Amino acid sequence: MKSGLLSQLIQALCCLPGVGPKSAQRMAFHLLQRDREGARHLARQLLEAVERMGYCTSCRIFSEQTLCEFCTSPHRDGTLLCVVESPAEVWTIDQAGFFNGLYFVLHGRLSPLEGIGPEALGLPLLENRLQTGEVRELILATNATVEGEATAHFIGEIAHRHGVRATRIAQGVPMGGALEYIDSGTLAHAFSGRREV
Amino acid sequence: MKSGLLSQLIQALCCLPGVGPKSAQRMAFHLLQRDREGARHLARQLLEAVERMGYCTSCRIFSEQTLCEFCTSPHRDGTLLCVVESPAEVWTIDQAGFFNGLYFVLHGRLSPLEGIGPEALGLPLLENRLQTGEVRELILATNATVEGEATAHFIGEIAHRHGVRATRIAQGVPMGGALEYIDSGTLAHAFSGRREV
Repeated sequence: MKSGLLSQLIQALCCLPGVGPKSAQRMAFHLLQRDREGARHLARQLLEAVERMGYCTSCRIFSEQTLCEFCTSPHRDGTLLCVVESPAEVWTIDQAGFFNGLYFVLHGRLSPLEGIGPEALGLPLLENRLQTGEVRELILATNATVEGEATAHFIGEIAHRHGVRATRIAQGVPMGGALEYIDSGTLAHAFSGRREV
Repeated sequence: MKSGLLSQLIQALCCLPGVGPKSAQRMAFHLLQRDREGARHLARQLLEAVERMGYCTSCRIFSEQTLCEFCTSPHRDGTLLCVVESPAEVWTIDQAGFFNGLYFVLHGRLSPLEGIGPEALGLPLLENRLQTGEVRELILATNATVEGEATAHFIGEIAHRHGVRATRIAQGVPMGGALEYIDSGTLAHAFSGRREV
């Protein structure tokens, strides 16, 4: 005998990733009992973000303007272009603080079975950018999955056609990783990618 | 270099219980990339619930009307009143389907240190209800914690003053519980509460 409004709120909360009916119920009760102002604020932010947030026309990252803060920044190196699968990865790389180039977001990976081809990933846009001759190196930072590798390979070919150097981020043992617990695939990559000391 | 709107949305999502900055970021990206309609719907439901959801004046459960669906139902037994700490517990008990009486929600437990006294728990309201003579048995279903026990004891005293029978839900081994893994406190309760077979 749930009140209608409450059921509807719980159902709506289930649209959040990782939130099932039980957590949604807990969230709804928490907001209604203890944080109605927070709920109001969240609703306003959701509406505003959904209405005003678009994509940068140059690198396809989320942006309120036509061009994002990366692409308009005079402090970033436009000759280095890093290709990632999703906007979350842009943040991860940027928070690490070592990269000062620009980004290009695919919003996915090549997946012929799901009907995701080069157009859906914005590759014609990327190709235009490579044609201008501004980009000196294309860093392929797609995920180390089968689809991620295939996507990196495909984009690498495009870069070569335009005479742009394409590099793939290194695979190997993560920092602090104990060899004992590392899977054989990673270990094989670490050995094949070994360097002189 | 996060866009302002995006940071604000992520911060707003952190008001949800169990959601930290990392999950909030994942939620924000998911909503913006794949489910803008869901985000819009969630925002509307949040606003509506916050604006329209109040408390039943009789049992203090969430309700859109002055009296909730429990209190107005002709099929429920008003002589049995079950006292719980929070609205979530009403749902848990009601979904189990064995109880057909009415509820009274404390929205907390007695905690003098936090300044939560009888008034905050609505005990004057409960006392008025006991005075009418309608209630035959008061089932104390507060949590089996120290505060829950103290609260149950305190309310039991009130019930006795008004000549109403007060009962406390049983403590013991949960269904399917293997004795080997049960804590000593529970086991002691199970032994002291043993019954003839």
